[in-house]
Amino acid sequence: MPALHEDDGVFTLDLGDDENRFSPDWLQAVNTSLDTVVEASGALVTTGHGKCYSNGLDLEWIVRHPEELPSYRTEVQELLARVLTLPVPTVAAVNGHAFGAGAMLAVAHDFRVMRADRGFFCFPEVDIDVPFTPGMAALIQHKLTPAAAIASMTTGRRFGGTQARELGLVDETAAEGAVASNAAELVRPLAGKNRDTLGTIKTTVFGATAALLRAAEPAAQP
Amino acid sequence: MPALHEDDGVFTLDLGDDENRFSPDWLQAVNTSLDTVVEASGALVTTGHGKCYSNGLDLEWIVRHPEELPSYRTEVQELLARVLTLPVPTVAAVNGHAFGAGAMLAVAHDFRVMRADRGFFCFPEVDIDVPFTPGMAALIQHKLTPAAAIASMTTGRRFGGTQARELGLVDETAAEGAVASNAAELVRPLAGKNRDTLGTIKTTVFGATAALLRAAEPAAQP
Amino acid sequence: MPALHEDDGVFTLDLGDDENRFSPDWLQAVNTSLDTVVEASGALVTTGHGKCYSNGLDLEWIVRHPEELPSYRTEVQELLARVLTLPVPTVAAVNGHAFGAGAMLAVAHDFRVMRADRGFFCFPEVDIDVPFTPGMAALIQHKLTPAAAIASMTTGRRFGGTQARELGLVDETAAEGAVASNAAELVRPLAGKNRDTLGTIKTTVFGATAALLRAAEPAAQP
Repeated sequence: MPALHEDDGVFTLDLGDDENRFSPDWLQAVNTSLDTVVEASGALVTTGHGKCYSNGLDLEWIVRHPEELPSYRTEVQELLARVLTLPVPTVAAVNGHAFGAGAMLAVAHDFRVMRADRGFFCFPEVDIDVPFTPGMAALIQHKLTPAAAIASMTTGRRFGGTQARELGLVDETAAEGAVASNAAELVRPLAGKNRDTLGTIKTTVFGATAALLRAAEPAAQP
Repeated sequence: MPALHEDDGVFTLDLGDDENRFSPDWLQAVNTSLDTVVEASGALVTTGHGKCYSNGLDLEWIVRHPEELPSYRTEVQELLARVLTLPVPTVAAVNGHAFGAGAMLAVAHDFRVMRADRGFFCFPEVDIDVPFTPGMAALIQHKLTPAAAIASMTTGRRFGGTQARELGLVDETAAEGAVASNAAELVRPLAGKNRDTLGTIKTTVFGATAALLRAAEPAAQP
Repeated sequence: MPALHEDDGVFTLDLGDDENRFSPDWLQAVNTSLDTVVEASGALVTTGHGKCYSNGLDLEWIVRHPEELPSYRTEVQELLARVLTLPVPTVAAVNGHAFGAGAMLAVAHDFRVMRADRGFFCFPEVDIDVPFTPGMAALIQHKLTPAAAIASMTTGRRFGGTQARELGLVDETAAEGAVASNAAELVRPLAGKNRDTLGTIKTTVFGATAALLRAAEPAAQP
């Protein structure tokens, strides 16, 4: 389960040591941690430990609760919209694999630092026949260059850290063991920004995309 | 006239050995070829042979058929929208000059590989007093960085392959004779993607721009 | 006060030798100069001399005329929209500090050349608790990559010329004394473009953002 630690205004949210998929309990724990960070006007680092940052949707849970898929999707998109416009500085420390909605979560942060030598950043949607929702597609396009969006969204390609940096999927790479600490140093000077101002700025910049993420999905055809 | 060849799932559409302008017959032949590629769920490479990839609109034909200009423009923009959202992987192998709507056709593909040492990528619109339509402007802006869009759309500058690569007008350059083959290798691993999924992804990503390209032009003032 | 000089079709608008803030008189002088440049179908270089390009809003004047803030803001945003869509080639020669609306003015030009070794490009909005208006946020996002927009809009960071070039906030850097001349050489080949065509192109490319800059601000709540 996600766990939150603070070091002088910089909060590190450890997403877990497994695949760190978005189970309902995991989503609730993440949201509670975000409440704490916002309340404190801190800066946020998210990271995993082990092989994965996050592999995204909890497919096993979905299979067991098909009737709850619409509300689950709403919750996931709400988290992406919340992180996108969170009124504190945010950075994803991508310690390992970031797949699908896990990669989208990283993209929703202000910045991304990725381990250089292991782990893949990947949108497998095209290969698993799960197209992006309009909100998810808008999120990715709002954060990446057109070339990076196309190369990552239409190919299913797995990008190692160095390739991800070259394409601009992430801002920096770091050696094993330095990913979370470099990420923390990136936002440490930004901790304590006025959260009303920063929140307004992010909402102005990303408002249209956040609204799409929060829009009701059209009902499936009967 | 355009001709289509297949090699193990990768279809190469040869646009011709001349200026490869968009005559009505040329447009029909290209569309018929696209039907074949989509039907086969193949990957698409377009290229010319000789000095030109394509010089765009068939100005001689337009001069001879002024009354058909509106329907001609509709057909051209439909081709750009179709390539932009084609449900197979696409790459333009820019073997030589790509001017005006010829450059737009290249931009509509997922990727672009350009010959390094000869040929120019150019939007001459500002110099020939033919402004971009809203759909064409949206297409270019949806595929290039802001800096690349401005530098190419407002100056009429002719970019050689190396400059085009530096600015991000194209993704890669290649030596003479390797342009089409490098382009083919780029999409070969992507041939066979589920075309419904890829088509949905591209339509989600580029839907607004495709709609602008397909929108009726406002009627000219009497 | 701003002063305009011409050299063979290239007009250099000197924004002043002080902080070059946007006082009402300064705005009027700039607009009168723009009239001259457009009338002549010239190319435009803007620059300051001394430590600053422009530090933006005239805060002292605002404090003395609080009741005129709405009309002042309208004038400032009109200038940004006008420069964004000016029907002649434009380049900002950023000789020194460009802060806030001064940096936005630079961003509104087609191109930016910045002094490499001194001066900062900075959006201090997050630190002075003055969020971007929707039009200003749209302007910056329309001209910069997503990564550059986030790094500059949410951090208050001051970017020297070299960093600004790496991030794409500016297109080129130059040594002291070569900033304005390099900028002039950049647009000299473009002077004399048909201003109706170039104006239509820029209005098509940037129309939505110009409209946001020109939209009435929502009235403040009583």
